[in-house]
Amino acid sequence: MTLNPADPAFEAALRADLSPDVFREVEPRYLEEPRGLYAGKSAVLALPRTVEEVATLIRHANAARVGVIPYGGGTGLVGGQVAESGPAPLILSLERMNKLRAVYPDENVLVAEAGMILSDVQAAAETADRLFPLTLAAQGSARIGGNLATNAGGTGVLRYGNARDLCLGLEAVLPDGQIWNGLTRLRKNNTGYDLRHLLVGAEGTLGVITAAALKLFPRPAKTGTALLVVNSPAAALKLLSLARSQLGEMISAFEIMNGVGLDFLTEKMPELRQPFDTPPEWSVLIELGLSGELDPMASLETLFAAAFEADLVTDGLIAQSQQQSEDFWAVREMMPHANRQIGSISSHDISVPLGALPEFIIRAGEKVTALGDFRINCFGHVGDGNLHYNVFPVQGRSREDHLDDRGAIKAAIHDLVHELGGSISAEHGIGRLKVKDLERYSDPAKLSALHAIKAALDPKGIMNPGAMFPAPE
Amino acid sequence: MTLNPADPAFEAALRADLSPDVFREVEPRYLEEPRGLYAGKSAVLALPRTVEEVATLIRHANAARVGVIPYGGGTGLVGGQVAESGPAPLILSLERMNKLRAVYPDENVLVAEAGMILSDVQAAAETADRLFPLTLAAQGSARIGGNLATNAGGTGVLRYGNARDLCLGLEAVLPDGQIWNGLTRLRKNNTGYDLRHLLVGAEGTLGVITAAALKLFPRPAKTGTALLVVNSPAAALKLLSLARSQLGEMISAFEIMNGVGLDFLTEKMPELRQPFDTPPEWSVLIELGLSGELDPMASLETLFAAAFEADLVTDGLIAQSQQQSEDFWAVREMMPHANRQIGSISSHDISVPLGALPEFIIRAGEKVTALGDFRINCFGHVGDGNLHYNVFPVQGRSREDHLDDRGAIKAAIHDLVHELGGSISAEHGIGRLKVKDLERYSDPAKLSALHAIKAALDPKGIMNPGAMFPAPE
Repeated sequence: MTLNPADPAFEAALRADLSPDVFREVEPRYLEEPRGLYAGKSAVLALPRTVEEVATLIRHANAARVGVIPYGGGTGLVGGQVAESGPAPLILSLERMNKLRAVYPDENVLVAEAGMILSDVQAAAETADRLFPLTLAAQGSARIGGNLATNAGGTGVLRYGNARDLCLGLEAVLPDGQIWNGLTRLRKNNTGYDLRHLLVGAEGTLGVITAAALKLFPRPAKTGTALLVVNSPAAALKLLSLARSQLGEMISAFEIMNGVGLDFLTEKMPELRQPFDTPPEWSVLIELGLSGELDPMASLETLFAAAFEADLVTDGLIAQSQQQSEDFWAVREMMPHANRQIGSISSHDISVPLGALPEFIIRAGEKVTALGDFRINCFGHVGDGNLHYNVFPVQGRSREDHLDDRGAIKAAIHDLVHELGGSISAEHGIGRLKVKDLERYSDPAKLSALHAIKAALDPKGIMNPGAMFPAPE
Repeated sequence: MTLNPADPAFEAALRADLSPDVFREVEPRYLEEPRGLYAGKSAVLALPRTVEEVATLIRHANAARVGVIPYGGGTGLVGGQVAESGPAPLILSLERMNKLRAVYPDENVLVAEAGMILSDVQAAAETADRLFPLTLAAQGSARIGGNLATNAGGTGVLRYGNARDLCLGLEAVLPDGQIWNGLTRLRKNNTGYDLRHLLVGAEGTLGVITAAALKLFPRPAKTGTALLVVNSPAAALKLLSLARSQLGEMISAFEIMNGVGLDFLTEKMPELRQPFDTPPEWSVLIELGLSGELDPMASLETLFAAAFEADLVTDGLIAQSQQQSEDFWAVREMMPHANRQIGSISSHDISVPLGALPEFIIRAGEKVTALGDFRINCFGHVGDGNLHYNVFPVQGRSREDHLDDRGAIKAAIHDLVHELGGSISAEHGIGRLKVKDLERYSDPAKLSALHAIKAALDPKGIMNPGAMFPAPE
């Protein structure tokens, strides 16, 4: 069952049913992705403005058996948005469906079209004195439909959950071109299998999300930020437990950073103000968002004192101003940029059960060291058990010197993650990068169910071919 | 594609592969359900002790094309656990798989077998100084596997979510007898379609849940309870908004009650201590769970004062003791029992968007009144937009006098719910009671996707036949 190319005859058929300005020449940006691992070839580009236009496009693609690549902000890190091989696809960009459809402050709900940029969604919530808590590095260009299709994570997950947890309802076009109007704003709705949870995280392989009803939250009355130096990842976990016992759900972020990452910042971004003169080996960035009468400074001081007493932290800073809080966060947020400038040999978006995190860090370090001389920058969302575990060349060498090491490093890390009951893709998804890993590490019953669902809802395999599953032969 | 009966030959084949004590005579309780609407006929009853035994049973049923009814605590309210028609099924009770497999307090995770009773799960969490927040009337006999299969709701949803939101991973047997080991304890795991969210809420139609990894939470340091008299449902919603702005996520429950329900309690349970001498027309039960240094009494007093100032409440009580808090809750929790003693003509577990709640209550009242003389008890989880809207005969008449009115009342309520963008089953599910309603009110694209998924994962239709979908012909 091979797919057909989006050839001139196909494009002519589309143009016969749709306004000419739905189409545009494919610019290179639609055929690239942030890590430069994949490059697309020719394609037909459509930029629909309504769900009906999306449905028309999908119906044509289905009838002609042409692959469809749903395209959001193009910020995905696993190649889900770029078809490198196979017949030329239809690229379906949601960028013109970027309207805020409605805000219901009293319901804590916002309805956004899929092409709305994440930071615009955040801003719309703020205008209504509410919080939309999905927060990630690419928020200035990522679009909410892509965030949902990939079940994006980020720094707010500890408190507010992943993208899927923030979604109440969806409007989507299914692979046969049917429009599913599932845009409910309901908190409870037990009427059959939850299609919303099937489409969220499906990476565009089961249909195209065109709009979503999203959960909003009260904005915390006050926030506080601290940067604490911990003795070890194990101490970081104990600190998290201590913080939770004192502050319950009011911990908005709990991020771990390694000294290697801080050294990278010194090396590549010397202008960035770093909080500590000497980069500590392990530090934790804590953000509190408090309701009611509580004082974040006092809460952080109480936590720091108890953690110091318990030998969990050796040093620490509590932000005394909004500026200082932003400085602390800049260190964390600039880390992926510094990483990219250094150039990783192999990077891993993994999760393990929280209790296995210290063991993972120790054993992964041993395994990588056994393979050669490398620098490891391990940082991330420790409260979620989610680490970005990235391996770099030593100074003076480049990633190109280590192309042959990549496979062995990746296998060592992923095997260990699997052994510890973890996930080889915590928040970035499968895309095209991890198709073989999904096959290799998945439970067989799960894998056969995934294939059955894909075949049932997209029997011709037109939706994002090559993502999540091998491309049709 | 008809199913075959679980006849003596089938039972003999099972017995050849399994220990004799897996089987037991079917007692009447497995063929009844709480509302007495359905009665099962003969069946083979199996009580497996391990997931492997469950898999063996399902493999046999699949090979012989025999229907399987997964059975938890038997407390479901939509007949999902009783096959009234069709060939005799295999009833697969999880009651012996009731072990607590593990608790990870530092990870805030507990792993329970499906047959564990909900209140035992709550108690196990409490022993580890944690909270498992799923709370519902039947918690003393409902089993966690059934809670997950039906995506149970209850009074804790506003703060902590539905059963699905409390589940990190599942172990389950799929309709072909494969064991899916998806019992991860991960907070982030983006590796393919989320089967967990497909099985949760599938009401046993896609497989049998045998164990689950569940989320725990810090136990709130202090709790507080208040019962406030509000002017109207609209005022109740404004009170919720006000409470949220003051207390953020620390509102654990927000339940509305109607004077008719309080009158029912007076009539049927005169020994129950009622907080107000004269039952108010509308009252709201608020429960706070506070972390840190906050004082619940002071918080409730502040809220009450502001609400009084804003003309939202006219009277109110703040519990001064644990006993008084329990008294307040007893009023709410006894309401379903009183309802059952009065005997409803038609009861509805509906949800609407929060903002549409006052309109729903007014218009539904008008519609019911137009159909005749009835008493309406409308109460429930107003913070979730979820009402139990139950219609009763006037004093001196019985439900049997109104059998002919049931259809018209139900249609009037469900049509209105549908018009307002609501759900005809907020938390109880579809079961056998609402199969036709699901067909009638579902979006066509959703309905066709549901059928495709069912056919893909259970092509012979053996899992809970007649629930969610019409029974195979």
